[in-house]
Amino acid sequence: MESFSFELIAQDGAARAGVFHTPHGDLLTPVFAPVGTQATVKAITPRQLEELQASLVLANTYHLFLRPGDELVAEMGGLHRFMNWPNPILTDSGGFQVFSLADIRKVDADGVSFKSHIDGSARRLTPESSIQIQQNLGADIIMAFDECAPPYDREYNIQAMARTHAWAERCLNAKTRSDQALFGIVQGGIFPDLREESAKVIGSMDFPGIAIGGLSVGESKAEMHAMLELLNPILPANKPRYLMGVGSPEDLVNGVMRGIDIFDCVLPTRLARHQAVMTHHGRLNMLNAIFAHDERPIDSECKCYTCQGFSRAYLRHLVVAKEMLASTLLSIHNIHTLVSLSRMMRQAIIEHKFSQFSSEYITGYFGTTQNSLQQEGL
Amino acid sequence: MESFSFELIAQDGAARAGVFHTPHGDLLTPVFAPVGTQATVKAITPRQLEELQASLVLANTYHLFLRPGDELVAEMGGLHRFMNWPNPILTDSGGFQVFSLADIRKVDADGVSFKSHIDGSARRLTPESSIQIQQNLGADIIMAFDECAPPYDREYNIQAMARTHAWAERCLNAKTRSDQALFGIVQGGIFPDLREESAKVIGSMDFPGIAIGGLSVGESKAEMHAMLELLNPILPANKPRYLMGVGSPEDLVNGVMRGIDIFDCVLPTRLARHQAVMTHHGRLNMLNAIFAHDERPIDSECKCYTCQGFSRAYLRHLVVAKEMLASTLLSIHNIHTLVSLSRMMRQAIIEHKFSQFSSEYITGYFGTTQNSLQQEGL
Repeated sequence: MESFSFELIAQDGAARAGVFHTPHGDLLTPVFAPVGTQATVKAITPRQLEELQASLVLANTYHLFLRPGDELVAEMGGLHRFMNWPNPILTDSGGFQVFSLADIRKVDADGVSFKSHIDGSARRLTPESSIQIQQNLGADIIMAFDECAPPYDREYNIQAMARTHAWAERCLNAKTRSDQALFGIVQGGIFPDLREESAKVIGSMDFPGIAIGGLSVGESKAEMHAMLELLNPILPANKPRYLMGVGSPEDLVNGVMRGIDIFDCVLPTRLARHQAVMTHHGRLNMLNAIFAHDERPIDSECKCYTCQGFSRAYLRHLVVAKEMLASTLLSIHNIHTLVSLSRMMRQAIIEHKFSQFSSEYITGYFGTTQNSLQQEGL
Repeated sequence: MESFSFELIAQDGAARAGVFHTPHGDLLTPVFAPVGTQATVKAITPRQLEELQASLVLANTYHLFLRPGDELVAEMGGLHRFMNWPNPILTDSGGFQVFSLADIRKVDADGVSFKSHIDGSARRLTPESSIQIQQNLGADIIMAFDECAPPYDREYNIQAMARTHAWAERCLNAKTRSDQALFGIVQGGIFPDLREESAKVIGSMDFPGIAIGGLSVGESKAEMHAMLELLNPILPANKPRYLMGVGSPEDLVNGVMRGIDIFDCVLPTRLARHQAVMTHHGRLNMLNAIFAHDERPIDSECKCYTCQGFSRAYLRHLVVAKEMLASTLLSIHNIHTLVSLSRMMRQAIIEHKFSQFSSEYITGYFGTTQNSLQQEGL
């Protein structure tokens, strides 16, 4: 792991500010990673991502394995060069998509056989092949192949967790590149005893970082928070912690409050394609007719390209006219919201003001409605 | 017309290099204007347009009149501010779209009644209302309301031309803003005597620029060239000439060779959305499987953002995966091709090498096929 190290810069309660050194640059944590499923963050160029100061991008192993194929990406010099993103990249293991998107034929002790959702072709992923694919893709942070079970099914979670632990060991053994950091994944559904066991097993293995999987997949926010509070003292303090698939502003604050360092989510770009924007004070639907004559930007305090140049009236016009630029401009704003929130949280932790920051943020977030935002001149 | 003036810098044969001064900056001619139909060049931000050095953008009066409405645009400070484009803008008169897109109820001496293609509502455009709408939109260059007839129908063209001339006079009378340059439009189909008459009538009116309408609407290239050669000596030399709706690379060269200064076309952005790219050596279809493993950019000599950072293999992947970024990156390249071609032509004219440049360009353009491009390592 010579290429990677994690430094804790400051701590405030359970909240942590750190630096994760990677071969493609330092990640200042807490950090939010926008998702580039098919080796592109939808509707955004890499230059635009850099302009809004995103530092880490996630790409999906499942999708790239099926199309264009990991070997092609390797032949093209790896993901960084293929998608023209010079900064850190994280790939997931493919496990989650196999279980959520594909038509599964068979899960066995060795791996998963499934049919591609694109062309129905028979495919197989094992811990070893997932690592091989991720080595071909060449991301800085790669993930152990795991099984994500439905959160409330105890019997399923016991089996899936056992497989996840066995597969974690096999992933560690399969990995050969020293310029990639392999993270293990904690599973266990909403069951405290299983989560505790999983955190101990994965936490004791030789992973430079720990991911928490299987949350944000149907359980309540209260259950997610309880799980994070349970895991916080068990997980090794000196390793970055990555809460997979989580990404609303309030989720980021709640995660950081409970010791999380890294987040990823499709939410900012998916909301943008459905004309919704996230701000530090709540969501707005840009199709809303109240914006038709509104000269103000989405958020008058926001420094993103969209808010610096375009009115709500113009953005609503793009949405109504079904122009592609709507997805681009709203994605830029939404990603910027999460990137700037991460930066604000880091600063608050360093200044030991996180508790105040987080309670004010959550109050401001839930204390306003779309109409009050409107009246307040947000 | 104090805000506008046209200087001829150099001439080489019929080809002209000039500067058209506008309130939002100088246009160096020959110039190609990408089309932003609904107040956005599809899939491109204004910042990206500036990065690729586009200087003039066209927006469609018909579309903006229907949605979001010219009064809304005026209320938002006009088109420049609404679409966040600080450089020159040109609006057409709405005439062409009324005749090509709308369900026409009635053309009379006073104007055209039609149904909106969006919601079927009854609408009307007259010379006076077209000018009023264009004054609300606030572009630098605006167009007289005209009637574009099918090119081969002589009787129709006689009537349409007479209406176009009468309406041109009414447009001049209706115009009140001094910060907009109103161009007249020459019509007459493929009939030399009608075109000659129209050029004389429109050329003698008090327009600071002359547009040529009704070409590139179904007639052959040879007929278009013959019309331009006929018009060149008739049109006033001291006014910029705008060939409407024309925009392949070879069309630009052929137009400049025959005295044209300004072009606009949806071609670069429309082709991009259909995965085709234009280069200085011909077109490529990026869906083609021969590009699957091709590490080279679209055009290794091109300086655009797309060619500086992305391989054909990656672009093909985006096209196959139906990612929005494909439209963005291919549009950037295609617009850059026409913008850089315009710049090369201007330079060749200034150096009195246009005849050589144009014959080499046309030969290179038609002398290569997609496969030979491939082998040549374009």
